[in-house]
Amino acid sequence: MRRWNGWGDEHNDFPLEPSGLAFLREILGRAQPLPDATLASVAASVPPTRLAAHPLVDTSAETRLRHARGQSLPDWLAMRSGQFGVFPDGVAEPENAAQIRELLAWAVDQDAIVIPYGGGTSVAGHINPPASQRPVLTLSLARMNKLLALDRTSQIARFGAGTAGPALERQLREQGYVLGHFPQSWELSTVGGWVASRSSGQQSLRYGRIEQLFAGGSVETLDGTLDIPTFPASSAGPDIREMMLGSEGRLGIISEVAVRVTPVPEHESFHVAFMPDWEGAVALVRALVQARLPLSMLRLSNAVETRTHLVLAGHGNLVAWLERYLSLRGCGAGKCMMTFGVTGERAASRRLLADVLRRVRRAGGVNTGRMLGRKWEEARFRSPYLRHGLWEHGYVVDTLETAADWQRVPALVERIEAAIAAQAGEGEGVHVFTHLSHLYPQGSSIYTTYVFRCSGSYETTLARWRRMKTAACEAIVAGGGTISHQHGVGRDHAAWLAAEKGERGMAALAALTQHFDPQARLNPGCLLEE
Amino acid sequence: MRRWNGWGDEHNDFPLEPSGLAFLREILGRAQPLPDATLASVAASVPPTRLAAHPLVDTSAETRLRHARGQSLPDWLAMRSGQFGVFPDGVAEPENAAQIRELLAWAVDQDAIVIPYGGGTSVAGHINPPASQRPVLTLSLARMNKLLALDRTSQIARFGAGTAGPALERQLREQGYVLGHFPQSWELSTVGGWVASRSSGQQSLRYGRIEQLFAGGSVETLDGTLDIPTFPASSAGPDIREMMLGSEGRLGIISEVAVRVTPVPEHESFHVAFMPDWEGAVALVRALVQARLPLSMLRLSNAVETRTHLVLAGHGNLVAWLERYLSLRGCGAGKCMMTFGVTGERAASRRLLADVLRRVRRAGGVNTGRMLGRKWEEARFRSPYLRHGLWEHGYVVDTLETAADWQRVPALVERIEAAIAAQAGEGEGVHVFTHLSHLYPQGSSIYTTYVFRCSGSYETTLARWRRMKTAACEAIVAGGGTISHQHGVGRDHAAWLAAEKGERGMAALAALTQHFDPQARLNPGCLLEE
Repeated sequence: MRRWNGWGDEHNDFPLEPSGLAFLREILGRAQPLPDATLASVAASVPPTRLAAHPLVDTSAETRLRHARGQSLPDWLAMRSGQFGVFPDGVAEPENAAQIRELLAWAVDQDAIVIPYGGGTSVAGHINPPASQRPVLTLSLARMNKLLALDRTSQIARFGAGTAGPALERQLREQGYVLGHFPQSWELSTVGGWVASRSSGQQSLRYGRIEQLFAGGSVETLDGTLDIPTFPASSAGPDIREMMLGSEGRLGIISEVAVRVTPVPEHESFHVAFMPDWEGAVALVRALVQARLPLSMLRLSNAVETRTHLVLAGHGNLVAWLERYLSLRGCGAGKCMMTFGVTGERAASRRLLADVLRRVRRAGGVNTGRMLGRKWEEARFRSPYLRHGLWEHGYVVDTLETAADWQRVPALVERIEAAIAAQAGEGEGVHVFTHLSHLYPQGSSIYTTYVFRCSGSYETTLARWRRMKTAACEAIVAGGGTISHQHGVGRDHAAWLAAEKGERGMAALAALTQHFDPQARLNPGCLLEE
Repeated sequence: MRRWNGWGDEHNDFPLEPSGLAFLREILGRAQPLPDATLASVAASVPPTRLAAHPLVDTSAETRLRHARGQSLPDWLAMRSGQFGVFPDGVAEPENAAQIRELLAWAVDQDAIVIPYGGGTSVAGHINPPASQRPVLTLSLARMNKLLALDRTSQIARFGAGTAGPALERQLREQGYVLGHFPQSWELSTVGGWVASRSSGQQSLRYGRIEQLFAGGSVETLDGTLDIPTFPASSAGPDIREMMLGSEGRLGIISEVAVRVTPVPEHESFHVAFMPDWEGAVALVRALVQARLPLSMLRLSNAVETRTHLVLAGHGNLVAWLERYLSLRGCGAGKCMMTFGVTGERAASRRLLADVLRRVRRAGGVNTGRMLGRKWEEARFRSPYLRHGLWEHGYVVDTLETAADWQRVPALVERIEAAIAAQAGEGEGVHVFTHLSHLYPQGSSIYTTYVFRCSGSYETTLARWRRMKTAACEAIVAGGGTISHQHGVGRDHAAWLAAEKGERGMAALAALTQHFDPQARLNPGCLLEE
């Protein structure tokens, strides 16, 4: 059973290692956990629905509370404290496009707001019902989770929009294909959600972002079905696909998604090397990606993240031995961990690996082989569980991200980390670290994690987070980064969108939502502030 | 001096080889050329301007006639016959964004239509002034042709939107970079025009289409400047870049374009191999592109195009010898020519070439080395001149193109060719042939050339063309292709756009143009029919 107040399945648990706990206590001090609310108490707080009865709509308290929040830090604090605030008035799980159309028509009839719901994994407030005079219908795509068609010649597969990562890759793999879209949220997030939020996966270097994978599909608008045909490319005017990418539920309900797939690769392996310092490491990864080496993944942790990873991994003796070895080879306290993936035909993969390792050595780095790469692979979707392990000990973790041109990347990393650190609060620490994980010839994503202590109450903890988050968002836009590289805008980032779109870009987006949804019925407040 | 009634510079001339002429006469019969109008006679037919005087606006007859037409077949017939129909009332060549703003404000004041003009190379009627009660101001970007900034770290260069292909690559090459966008029209077309028409270049397999190369820039809208920042990627809602790509002048005047550039490659070579038949050849090129081999170019001519190329190349004895050799190796009458490019680091290029040739051999193909590849390279921008050589002998040539998923490609090629052939007219022949030139893992572009005789008059020649063109467009949309892979919509394809965008897609595009240009002042009738 999926957790009602956190990440993933109830049976999956990844507690904090003792070494990790000691490490955090040393940096941040001991912390006091906050008390968790119970499911029963929250269920009792759900108000009566404002929707009429409909055979497809579930208005039970538990279903409504299970669809009220995503996975942002404010969502977490709301779920843990039991202070949900607003609940949807009902949740529908349509099984096909006809039922979506029926529900949309009914929502108009009820003057209800409609929020499309994929995996509920948003970390930016995409699916949170707004406080409104109008009732809120959450429309979950969970039952539309099948492979509908596979064109082997064109390597295009069509899925129900509610198909989550594991179900999608399993159905494809049975046919000999992969999609290769692996966001951190992969376990729960859905292909429709990826399109709606313009997401990016860990192996985007090989497979592309969802923009490159999304070939076409169907969207149920308030005015009827919008079919987007699949073409390999077209110059026939602005691309309707691109209107839907990042539309965050504002234009319609994405019901079916055609994606570009690839045969299962012959070979895949992940590797870890270390570089002596950040500056040289950034220069190396930039050179690798600008040389167009066909790596499937490339990630560079800064020194603090590298240190933190090694400590949190446990295996104290092994890590101590590794660090001594690295230090002898010139990778000491400032060392940076570079994780990379090699995917494809066997012979080409072998050559590519040799080429990369040659460049690593030439840049003063040290290869440590496949062991750490295997560890990364095992744990690649585990980070969202980390919040649980920390929470039990009174610590809070959050992440945020951006992307910028290479020229801006180094200064922007410093600026974001400094902005967060400056807002930790008097006498209070925050443990901040960063990696670059989506690299492009022109620039990189920047992914920053910060850990801090719960303060005495939920309110003060949320206020502490908000100061840090706000400062980081301001630093991002001031430093020339996009407000999001992979998480989307949702409600939490909407205030910063104008900084990059400009007044006229915002007006164009508003005109588009106004055209599709003149009554602001579809996910209002998301993407564009009301 | 640029030709006023055809392609390119007056000093460039590529007459039809005698062998080519004999070949066409055999297929189509002898033809009678139509008489050409003189520049003086056309200039005399230019009506008085309807615009007031403005220091930036040239209203001379010659300037106006030189900006009245593009390079479509109807444009050619209009220029050759002297029956231009409509001329712009004036032509401005602003030197900077401030002058564009001034001209836009003045156009509003004059209630004039504004047509942005890049290289005037449209083959779909993008820049043709419509017959209108309102005067027409053509706004040429020709003077905004400089490299404005180069960020070497991020590999981003910023250009004035009117920079044409050769000036752009020359300015970049001086700095050690290339853009790598080489449409057939490269000699005259501009970077702003590429963006506005969503164009694609011969080496898109390596460098990407203009969608991938366009990083950001500035657009002068009727409501002021819209700046699009450069990010390597973003999930911050729908991408404003994508609204401008293919906007065809309807949303604003693109004034500056930031593009993603690449260091000049160590190695580049082009090669030609032959395959015994079309079916096997299509399977091979599909396999090559689906295996993600990093070729920089890949083109496959069908049997008729292959034969035509060899004949038109001249060098009769050499070709006869080549054909005997190929025939002995299994590539006879049905043989198909595959041209491909290898670009990048020297060692990687060598390996790639070996890999491709191995696959060619395994598929029953024959490599003929670099000679024909060099010939392709020399002549790569020469095809637009072919129309001149044919015209002198009374023949007309036109091309059209689409793209479709692989599953549809073979049938669609046949359907298009058959549709054209069926409309040649009673007792009249048409010589039709096709190549695939932009290949993707999911599908391919289809590029069809057709040659036919002038009939007795301009009117009947145009009518003959229109029957063939219309039939081909109908075949394209009926066969699941896009109405354009690289030429854009313009006025000539606008009637077929709804077939792929659908009613709701068309309404969304209309809402966008309506938002940016409520009075339909910017290039009305282009992209969306009035």
